[in-house]
This record gives sequence, C-alpha cells and structure tokens, in this order.
Amino acid sequence: MTEAHLDPIPYLTDLLGPAHVLTGEDTRRHAHDWTGKYKGTPRALLRPADRDQLAAIVTYAARHRLPVVPVAGNTGLAGGAYCDGALMVSVERLNRIREINPRARSATVEAGVILSQLHDAAEAQDLVFPLSFGARGSAMIGGVLSTNAGGSNVVRYGSTRGLCLGLEAVLPDGRVMDVMSPLHKDNTGLDLKDLMIGAEGTLGIVTAAVLRLFPRPRAYATAMVAVSDLDAALDLLNRLQEATGGAVEAFEYMPDDYMRQLFRLRPEMRPPFDRAYPISIMVEIGATAPRDATPGPDGRLPVVQLLEDTLGEGFERGEVLDAVIAQNETQREEIWARREISAEICFSAAHVVDNDIALPLDRVGTFLERMTARLPQIDPAAESVTVGHLGDGNLHYTVWASSGSADLKETIREAVEDEVAALDGSFSAEHGIGLSKLSTMARRKNPVALDAMRRIKAALDPEGIMNPGKLVPPAD
Amino acid sequence: MTEAHLDPIPYLTDLLGPAHVLTGEDTRRHAHDWTGKYKGTPRALLRPADRDQLAAIVTYAARHRLPVVPVAGNTGLAGGAYCDGALMVSVERLNRIREINPRARSATVEAGVILSQLHDAAEAQDLVFPLSFGARGSAMIGGVLSTNAGGSNVVRYGSTRGLCLGLEAVLPDGRVMDVMSPLHKDNTGLDLKDLMIGAEGTLGIVTAAVLRLFPRPRAYATAMVAVSDLDAALDLLNRLQEATGGAVEAFEYMPDDYMRQLFRLRPEMRPPFDRAYPISIMVEIGATAPRDATPGPDGRLPVVQLLEDTLGEGFERGEVLDAVIAQNETQREEIWARREISAEICFSAAHVVDNDIALPLDRVGTFLERMTARLPQIDPAAESVTVGHLGDGNLHYTVWASSGSADLKETIREAVEDEVAALDGSFSAEHGIGLSKLSTMARRKNPVALDAMRRIKAALDPEGIMNPGKLVPPAD
Repeated sequence: MTEAHLDPIPYLTDLLGPAHVLTGEDTRRHAHDWTGKYKGTPRALLRPADRDQLAAIVTYAARHRLPVVPVAGNTGLAGGAYCDGALMVSVERLNRIREINPRARSATVEAGVILSQLHDAAEAQDLVFPLSFGARGSAMIGGVLSTNAGGSNVVRYGSTRGLCLGLEAVLPDGRVMDVMSPLHKDNTGLDLKDLMIGAEGTLGIVTAAVLRLFPRPRAYATAMVAVSDLDAALDLLNRLQEATGGAVEAFEYMPDDYMRQLFRLRPEMRPPFDRAYPISIMVEIGATAPRDATPGPDGRLPVVQLLEDTLGEGFERGEVLDAVIAQNETQREEIWARREISAEICFSAAHVVDNDIALPLDRVGTFLERMTARLPQIDPAAESVTVGHLGDGNLHYTVWASSGSADLKETIREAVEDEVAALDGSFSAEHGIGLSKLSTMARRKNPVALDAMRRIKAALDPEGIMNPGKLVPPAD
Repeated sequence: MTEAHLDPIPYLTDLLGPAHVLTGEDTRRHAHDWTGKYKGTPRALLRPADRDQLAAIVTYAARHRLPVVPVAGNTGLAGGAYCDGALMVSVERLNRIREINPRARSATVEAGVILSQLHDAAEAQDLVFPLSFGARGSAMIGGVLSTNAGGSNVVRYGSTRGLCLGLEAVLPDGRVMDVMSPLHKDNTGLDLKDLMIGAEGTLGIVTAAVLRLFPRPRAYATAMVAVSDLDAALDLLNRLQEATGGAVEAFEYMPDDYMRQLFRLRPEMRPPFDRAYPISIMVEIGATAPRDATPGPDGRLPVVQLLEDTLGEGFERGEVLDAVIAQNETQREEIWARREISAEICFSAAHVVDNDIALPLDRVGTFLERMTARLPQIDPAAESVTVGHLGDGNLHYTVWASSGSADLKETIREAVEDEVAALDGSFSAEHGIGLSKLSTMARRKNPVALDAMRRIKAALDPEGIMNPGKLVPPAD
C-alpha cells in the first residue's frame, strides 16, 4: 500500500525547515521509550510548528499512504508511540497555553503543553488541573488525552475523559475536526471528543483541548497509614469520604512488597514508620471550603482534625495500626515522592510483566490472594511488586519474571488476565493498550465491541496510516 | 432498499406473541409524542420481553432492510422517537433492576426501567441516582442514555455520560455489544460506551447499563432567591460553591417571564414571594457529611446555616433582594414543583420554538439582552419564556411565535442560533437533536465532525435501518 519508493524528506524539509526533520540518532529521544521495551527507528521525526503544519504533514502522508506515528511526551508505558520506519510526528512545538479562564474554570491548551506547566499556570490563578502522576514533568497533554491517562486524583475528580470539555484533532486524511467546546453541557451529535480520548492516535492526532479546572484546595491533610488488611483500608476510605463529604483526593495502596523495593532501590528515601507493615495507604484530603482550612482556636486545621478523628476511630477498632500525618509541605512532598516514583521502581527489573488492571474495590484482596498462590506455580523465582490507586480499584501489579522468555511473560500475563476476568475486573485501567496489550485485547475484549472498533477505525482511517498496529488488534 | 413487499407481522407475532405486536390505534401512546409535534404511524409497535427477543427483531429487520425506531418512555422533546412506517421497538418490558450494589455504589438496570423507579430503589439503600427531571415518572433509562439527558443536578454530579459506567446494546445487525463494565477505570479501547450515549438509537438500541450511585444527602437546604441581576446570581453561585465545598445540587434560573406564565397556567401554585422579581433562582445544597446534617445547639442544621449566612451576605451587598428557605420537606417539594413543571408550561402554547441551548456562564445575560432586542424585529407578537439550569449555563429559551408558519419558526430558530454561536454557546444542551434540530446540525456543526459522524453511522449501520433520519443530517 505505502509508496516505499517515495522519498518524503525533501517535501517535509521544505514544509518544516531542516531543523525540524530529524533522522537517525537524532530521533532517539522520541523513538526509544523509557521502559526500554520499545526501540524503533522512524523514517523521520517531524516537529511541526503548529496545527496547520501538522495537518499538512498528515495530508501529505495520506496522499502517499505513508504511516504516521504521533508522539507527545513519550512517557507512555504500553508502546503506543513505538515507531519503526514510519513518519513520527511530535506535538512538542504545539506548546501554547492559549487561555486560562478563571471565571469559566477552564484551560485551553495545545497538545505539546507539559502537564506540570499546566499545573503551574492553573495554580497561578488559584485553580488546579487535578490530573497528576509521576511523569507530569515530561508528559504532554496530547499524550495524556490519547492515552486516557489516570493518576492519583481520579477518586475525587474523575478520569481524563471527564476533565476534557472539548478538543481539536487532525483526522487521518489531514482535515481538522474542531469540537473545542468550553461548555459543560454540549449535546450536539455523536461523542467524537470521547472517541478521540483513549484512541492512542489511531483515529487522528489531538492538537488542542479545553480542560476543566477546579478550585485549588486551601489546605491538605496528608498521611501515611498502616492498616490491618484491605477490608480495613476500604472501611477507612468510606469513613473518610463520609466525614469529609467526598473530599478524599488520593487513597494509594503501597503494600510491603512495594515499600521493600522502594527503600532498597532508593535508600535515600526515609521509611514512614519505624517498622514494616503489610499494607500502607497514602491518604490525602483536600479542603476547598474556608471553614475546613481556617485554623481553630487551638491552631489546628479542621481538615486535619477530621483526618485525625477518623484515624483515631480506626485505631480503636484495630483497623488502623499506625499513622503519620504531614505537618508541613515538605513532609507532604516526602509522602508523595514515595508514591510518584513507583513507575521507576516497578520497571527497574530485567524482565518486567506490568499489569495495569482494575477490580471492583471489594475484590482487590481476593485477586492478590489468588495471584500469590498462582504465580509461584508458573515461575517459582518470580517476584511481584504492587502499587495502586485503591480508591479506583486500580492496581499496578508488576511481576518481575525470572527470565525474559516471551512464553513465560505471556503465560504470566494470561494468568493475571484470568483472575482479573473471573473477578469482573478490567485488563487495562489507565496506561493504555498500545502494543503491550494488543494480544490481551484480542483475547479478552467483547468480540462485537472489537468488530465495532475495527469498523470505526476503517471508517475514519481507510488507508490505515494512523499509528498502525496499535490499540485495535487485527481481525484474524 | 427496504423490502416493502415483505409482511414482517407473521414472523414477529410468532416471535413475540400477538399481545406484543401492536398496530394502528394501539401504537398511539408510543407513536405520538406529548409535545404534539411528532405523530406517526408505525408499521408495528413491538414489545420484546428481553434482550434476546429484541436482538432477534433487529436481526430480522437487518436481514430484510426494514427500518427500526427504538422507543423508551417517549418523553423526548426533539422527535427522536418519531416513527412512521417503520418497526417501532419499545424497551418497556426490559424493566428489571438487576442489581443495586451499595458497596460498589452502582446499579445495573435494563433500558425499560423508569427513572423514578431507579430513584426509589437507590434511596432504599440510602443512595441516590442523581439524574432527575420533570418527566422522571415516565422517562426510561434507555431513553435517558440515548438522549444523553441532563437535568437539574448536573452542576454537582455531572451529565448522564459521567453517570454511566458501562452498557449493553444491540447493534444494527442484531449482535449484542457488551461493554457492561462496573469499573470507574476501564480503558480498553475506543470509547464505545460514550458513542452509544447520545446517539439517539441511530447506532443501535441500548438494552442495559451500569450506573453510578452516590451517598444520599443527609439533609438539604432549599430556597427560592430573588436576585438583582444575572451577575449577582453567578456571584451567589460561586460563593455557595466555595462555602459548601461544591455541594450545590441545583441552581435553577426562573425569571419573571416564566413565573408569570407558571402562575397564569397553574393558579393553584403559590408564588414564592409577595411580589414579582425580574430574576428568581431555585437553589439547593445537599449535605452528605454528618457534621453538616447534625442540628446544632440551637436546633439548626449547619447546611441551612451556611445557606442563610451566604444569602445574608448577599442581602448586605444588595445582590440578594428576597429569599424563602424551605422549612420542611413539603415546602421543599413545593419549590421543586414550580421548576419541574417547566416543560408543560413552555410547550403549552400553539406555536412553540423551543431552544435548548448552553452558553458560557458569564454570557447568559448578554444572550438574553440580544434576543430581547432581536425577537420583536422578527415577530412583534412573539413571547419568550425562559427557564434553565444556570449552574450549567443551560437555558431553555422558548419562543411562543405568533403563527405556526414554518418559515417564521425557522427564522426565529436561526436568530437564536446566530446569537448562541456568536457567544461560543451550543445549540443543543440536553434535549438532543432528533428531528427538531436536524437542520441546525447541518448548519452549525463543524463539517469535518459531521462527516466523521456520517462515516461512523455508515460503518455501524451500513443499511441505514436504525432510527433513520435522526441526529445525523444527510450529506447534501
């Protein structure tokens, strides 16, 4: 199909300028992902200056049936930006924050804006964009949206999908689809915005979006809490949600297998407790109302008091075993740092099988028990490292296999999938499908839904040039 | 295309039983909408007992290229269920609440469940399904989802889209697509759930869904408030959101033009104030935390105190002119009744041009000023009746035209669209497109987005049998 004989470089160099058409080693930063699993050689790395240049690239690629792979911050964990022999299109120069609108509580940003830059711009207006995760310093909005990335604050603010009001995308034929609505209610036909979110660039390239902002909490209550078991953890979550009226911003699961590897690999990090506990939870409450953030006569913050009282009740019930509440921003950052480094910890081994899964909250414990029994039967020398967003039932259950055997890894992956499926869970929660879960999609997704995806892909990308081979497994 | 010669009745009667294949006058309740604008004669009204019977109907219809029009509660306002000569498929017998799961805070319901029945089932577990509107006593979940209906509580809980975790649908070829995920994070491919929501049955028939439930507020503070102008109203909204930490459940705009017609047409309803004010707002705060719902030493509820204090500050600034706070559930219901009857009021005239629009919050006033100047130039004898969900910028700006002339109505509709577009608003917020806004869609929707919709429709419904002629205007 593709015109292999055609040399696109002259046209593209003429279009973008030589400084923005990179080849060979110059493409490395974009073409090698940081997990080290996906290393390709793009035919060229293209850095358009704006949406129109990007659209011109795609129009040209469509005319000549050249495959295109979009890339943003290249922080993905599923190989969604793997590119070998295709034109790699980076949105990094589409990096303008077009508007922060405090009254409408919205931000209009381009796809190359780095997540942490948006955080800073919102906070300057006393607002927050609540989506955050460890890679926020390099992840870009275009990738965040295309991955439908999650993070630690979904429990309070919802997922990326719910945080995006509208967007603009270049479709596989090079046309610009503008559904940049700033409105909270806009019901004008099929939901193309959500179709692009999570499509991993297979239906086009997101170039800009309108995102929701929220009032910046006036104060936080942040703690590390050791609990007796997972039921105690869920009980604590529900009591905190009730006491605060749903102000739990994060409820992160950090069991002993994670903490052990964390302090082994990052000895400079201080353990939260003077002993190890089977289950630690990172809790954060955000106080947006003045009455919760105004110190009382004793100088204490009501939001901290609420947390202390709820933890105190847990102690009395024997569900809470230990707890450390951050007394200042430095201590708060120390608590967050232990959690936000998790991807580096989990991917630090030689033979990683990462499982980004979701389970009904009350079945997380059952899943872990079953895997603890099953994994040694498959790979006696394997280790597991678990960390997750317990408030969403989202676990990152990472297995360090004893060898790099593809068969072994696939056997482990299938075993995890089996247990997840048996408990009505999901094989993908927030990292996306990319290449790493393509076989899982083919095995596990409802076949009628798979066929519908293939039809939609063919309808919007008949030549199959947009991020080919990702997300949607081919029909066999 | 369709096999007009074929008589489907014998097969369908054999499939469903004679009691569930209705024709002629027996189809009236489903085939005539209550606005009186859309009256058709279905070839037959079919009432399948379950999903499999429904799928068999669609499979048969697809094989013989017979058009199918789904219908649920038939409370739509846009003609989305208009059916003339097609097979009308009612989901009314798919009416089981399969599960209310208090721990997961979810409900699994079939498409024929009536909204108020779900409300009751949730409240029995001390939970709420927060989507509500005047027609809740007859609207069914299948229609609610297919319309992406809104309502009065979106300001706190989000729209239908955000309240639905997963669903099951019969596609236009009769296959069942099961994406019934109960999870809050489930990122497994293209977002087919949201593609079906708001598709108005053009891509298939929703047969069941998993919906989110929320803790039932322990107490409400509900009031009618007269304000000096729209800026004062928005200021009040922001102050209430801040004071309560975002617990505003409803913030409804009820100006004098609406109140006047309300009390003219419903003289039994008691005016909230002893005089008329230009702008009245219905506000409700929901208290989910015990500390907000536990009476203080003086017997007052903290949540009511918060509302009184905030209104008091408004009085001092001259922004709040008058206010009545419900002292009991009866008074609360009386306040809600004035709002929930709005559709009946607005559609009570002979020549109605209803405009379900959304605007950026800070431009609502400008829109109304412009229409007040423009409408008399088009139709000097026209009256306007406005009511809306101000917290979402969603206005129901209804024009009572002086005649039923189609040209006049279209001129009025276009004038409204012009002003909405000039203010970055949306021509459709929560009632859907159906037939009533098909011309608007063709005129106003981004053409690339329109083309994408047509491609998706053709990909999933190549024969064009599912609710033909609705939502997606034909390419000209």
